[in-house]
Amino acid sequence: MPVYLRGLLFASEQKRENISSQNLAELVGVNSWQIRKDFSYFGDFGIRGVGYDVNKLAAQIRKILKIAAVQKTALVGVGNIGSAVLAYSGFGKYNLDIAVAFDVAPDKIGRKIENVVIEDVASLWKLKKRKIKLGIIAVPEQAAQETADKLVKAGIKGILNFSPRYLAVPKKVKVITIDIAMYLASLPYYMPTI
Amino acid sequence: MPVYLRGLLFASEQKRENISSQNLAELVGVNSWQIRKDFSYFGDFGIRGVGYDVNKLAAQIRKILKIAAVQKTALVGVGNIGSAVLAYSGFGKYNLDIAVAFDVAPDKIGRKIENVVIEDVASLWKLKKRKIKLGIIAVPEQAAQETADKLVKAGIKGILNFSPRYLAVPKKVKVITIDIAMYLASLPYYMPTI
Repeated sequence: MPVYLRGLLFASEQKRENISSQNLAELVGVNSWQIRKDFSYFGDFGIRGVGYDVNKLAAQIRKILKIAAVQKTALVGVGNIGSAVLAYSGFGKYNLDIAVAFDVAPDKIGRKIENVVIEDVASLWKLKKRKIKLGIIAVPEQAAQETADKLVKAGIKGILNFSPRYLAVPKKVKVITIDIAMYLASLPYYMPTI
Repeated sequence: MPVYLRGLLFASEQKRENISSQNLAELVGVNSWQIRKDFSYFGDFGIRGVGYDVNKLAAQIRKILKIAAVQKTALVGVGNIGSAVLAYSGFGKYNLDIAVAFDVAPDKIGRKIENVVIEDVASLWKLKKRKIKLGIIAVPEQAAQETADKLVKAGIKGILNFSPRYLAVPKKVKVITIDIAMYLASLPYYMPTI
């Protein structure tokens, strides 16, 4: 579903009003029958011969993904990856807002990057009051588990983890790990000439 | 398969010699029957009651993934994400080696980060001679397609793309895109209390 939303947002940027399952399939790289099957679970969004209404379908998927309203997110760690996350302009179209950032380095705390003031990680527990449920871990590997523990304690329910560690979290907390090496290691399998 | 390899590498770091499909399943977050099914396609690696030999199975999966030998990789763009890639220590265990890095900024060209000398992107075409088949795109969004074109021309067959763009490449070239916003947008769906 997030992959489809990504395709629809792209089509919307290209000022397309309708898209066929065939065209969406080509864009996101899956079979068109798979798209029709996936969407049929959630009701019928398409019109034969016209295709899907891009913006309506995007709104539906946002609802399914529970990002119909803006989701505030806390970032922990403002090193290379954390800075890239703050500078990244693509969150808004998914209704995501990096609302707060934390670091341990005294020379970073209090600085403002892309309109977000970096706060002391010692005040991370205050997140609970701000009703933020999403967190991003962009700290060094050895600090990742400790950071996850703190985020969970502060009420975070979903974590995007950039450290290559497996994080131990309660079952009700969802972790998605972006392990850069693992993704890179997935490529050669698809490359015919090697 | 890359997800399983990741789990096995972790088990190996923990000095484990054997792992049951149940334990591997818990580690990587899939069902144990799925693991047994997936491995059965490639032959039988496990011994009943003992489990899988961690290092043997890892070696088998490396072979399947075509990373049994070291794969050299070219990085294009040494901004925040590119610097994080260069500083990342986790590539070696997947037999990946960031062998060369390129940028356009005169103040970066010639500098050395983590033993890799940053080269002028104008000399990217020379990659062909070095027999490098993997590339990482970590350039600003508006330069991503142009960079992909250059990489393809230089003989690159697999691209890890950090820009949120869809890249147009020939069919024989495989692209994996890490769209940070899309991954973050996937979390709320799994979070029960929102």
